This record gives sequence, structure tokens and C-alpha cells, in this order.
Amino acid sequence: MELILASGSPRRREMFDLMGLSYTLRPSDADESLPPCAPSDMVETLALRKAASIKKSAPGCCVVGADTVVYLDGHIIGKPADEADASRILHMLSGRTHTVYTGVAILTDEKQLVFHETTDVTFATLSEAEIADYIASGEPMDKAGAYGVQGIGAVLVEKVEGCYFNIIGLPIPTFYRKLAEAGILPAWRRRL
Amino acid sequence: MELILASGSPRRREMFDLMGLSYTLRPSDADESLPPCAPSDMVETLALRKAASIKKSAPGCCVVGADTVVYLDGHIIGKPADEADASRILHMLSGRTHTVYTGVAILTDEKQLVFHETTDVTFATLSEAEIADYIASGEPMDKAGAYGVQGIGAVLVEKVEGCYFNIIGLPIPTFYRKLAEAGILPAWRRRL
Repeated sequence: MELILASGSPRRREMFDLMGLSYTLRPSDADESLPPCAPSDMVETLALRKAASIKKSAPGCCVVGADTVVYLDGHIIGKPADEADASRILHMLSGRTHTVYTGVAILTDEKQLVFHETTDVTFATLSEAEIADYIASGEPMDKAGAYGVQGIGAVLVEKVEGCYFNIIGLPIPTFYRKLAEAGILPAWRRRL
Repeated sequence: MELILASGSPRRREMFDLMGLSYTLRPSDADESLPPCAPSDMVETLALRKAASIKKSAPGCCVVGADTVVYLDGHIIGKPADEADASRILHMLSGRTHTVYTGVAILTDEKQLVFHETTDVTFATLSEAEIADYIASGEPMDKAGAYGVQGIGAVLVEKVEGCYFNIIGLPIPTFYRKLAEAGILPAWRRRL
């Protein structure tokens, strides 16, 4: 069964590579607007929407969609709009613990698995210079919560509770278990 | 400063990609034989040996070497020699907790940072069929401890305490902090 990753995220692609999967990339252009809701509902709904938008024209394939947000003080934080927004977000995260939600949808002709995983991340207290420096690196701009835990951002993080991969945008161990549960794994495991 | 990864491991290369690093690949062919020693000494010594073998012909560059082993019951377990060896190793790990050691060496003209990190991994109790199936997938053959936590092997693992990336062969958050500590980061962070 052909595996399709319906995501434009370079990190998700790199995690698929890290997993040794054979797959095709078909980023979804699904509408990401949504009325206010809980972060778990939001990431699951958007993951499903992304996967479904590709699945409708991919019969016989297994399509994976995913969505990641940061949650703090009742606010859902996505990608920063611009550098000023990235600065605002990083000031908000500084010295505190937030939760990363990643939702995943795995769609085949027979099955529809939708789930999410959370990871708690505690930031160090950041100086103005550190925040300015980090923004100048360009790393925050395309990432939920304006940081990447696998990049320079790793030095901003003091503690992680839960799955690291989940922060990058795909909870690899859980994802693998779900693929196996769905009976999808055996079809392409020989290629690994 | 040019960054060189002195490793032939596809997983380490993929983790460098995931980190968004610009680097050159120059796998080391350093001698990996070593008299019996503690696992921490072994991975640090081999990481240093790999990095040093490339560094001597790479003045001005930053060279990274790494080595990973699995440790259980006083035994150091590397890559399996063949499928029978992989089966023996997986039977040994089944239902128990082992420790993964990854040693890393970061060498520049001025600095020599050598460190290791450990992660405890608890395997599920595996059936004969699961072990045979996993070996047939081909995944165990080039990996310390005969499994990959980021691949099919993720379904064999019940619990992880410590850094996931460390199991794959490079403790990314610690590695990033060490690069920053060594003052190496600023030179190429703009490329990220």
C-alpha cells in the first residue's frame, strides 16, 4: 500500500526519512480555519482535514496528516505571523511550562485512525538578547510556538516531559504503534 | 567554520538534517577494536577516535564523531554480526530494561569536547514470531542492540527513560548545548 505524507513540513518529511519509510509527499492545501475549540480537538480536526483532502484522490493509499500547536494559559499558539509575533510568543514561553499538542490522522480505504499526543516543555528564562538572537537565526518563523526543539531552540529548553518527536511534529513511537495496530505496517516493512 | 560528520550512520546523517545543519559527510575508517572497558569509556574513546581520524586532515573545521552501544548484564552489545546474532540479542533484550550509551566527540582547532549520554529502554516481552519477523524486515542488522527505536523497532519498546535521540545515535538536545558551549554554534547558525 502506497504511503502518502500530506504535509508540507520539512521536519515531518525528515522524521519519515528517519523512520526509514518509503513514501510520497503530497502537501495538503486544506483550509485551516476553525472555530474556537480545545487544542486536542483542533489538532485532530486539522490533521484529519489535511489527510482527507489528499485521500479523496488517492484510493488504495494510506494517507497521513498531522498538525501541531503550542498551548499555554488557555491560548492556542501556532506559527508566528512575523518577527514581532515570534518575539511576543517567545516572551510568553520564557521561564514557563507549556504543552505541545500534535494530532495525527492515518487514513486507508478501510480505517480512519485519529489521535493526539501531548508533551510538556519547560523553557529557560530567556534574556532579550537571546530572544532577538534566536529570531535573527530565522529558525522560529515556520514553527508552532516559534521554536524548534531539534534545532538551535534546543538550548532554550530546560526540560521535556513526554515524547520529543511530538514537539517536532510527529510522535514517532506512538505513530508506529498506530500503523501496526491498523495493520498497515506489514505491507511496506520489507522495504525498511 | 565547516562542520564535518565523521560517521557512516544514515540515522546520524538524518538527525543532522533534522537539526537543519549544514555539514559535510566524511565517514571515518578508524580502528574500532578496544580492550575491555566500561561502556561509557568505550563510546567516548571510539567517538573521539572517529572524530580525530578525520580532524587530522581537516584543519579549521569542526569534526563530530559518535558511537553507540547497548549495555545489559555487564555486556556491551554492538551491531549484530549476522541474523543468528540478532536473534540472540533480541532474546536477551526481550522483557527487560537495558541502557543505551552514546558517546560524542566535537573537535575544533581550539576545543575537544567528549561526553556521553545514557537512556534506559524497556522492551516488551517478544514472541518468537515477533523476533523472526523483525529480523526478516532487515532493520536490526546495522544497529547497535539489533533494533531501531525510530523504525519498526518502536513497537518492540515499552518504555523509554531519557533522550530518544540518544538511542538513535545522537543526543540532539545535549549535542546542541555542547556546540553552543563550545562557541561553535554562532558560526553557522545563520544558515539554519
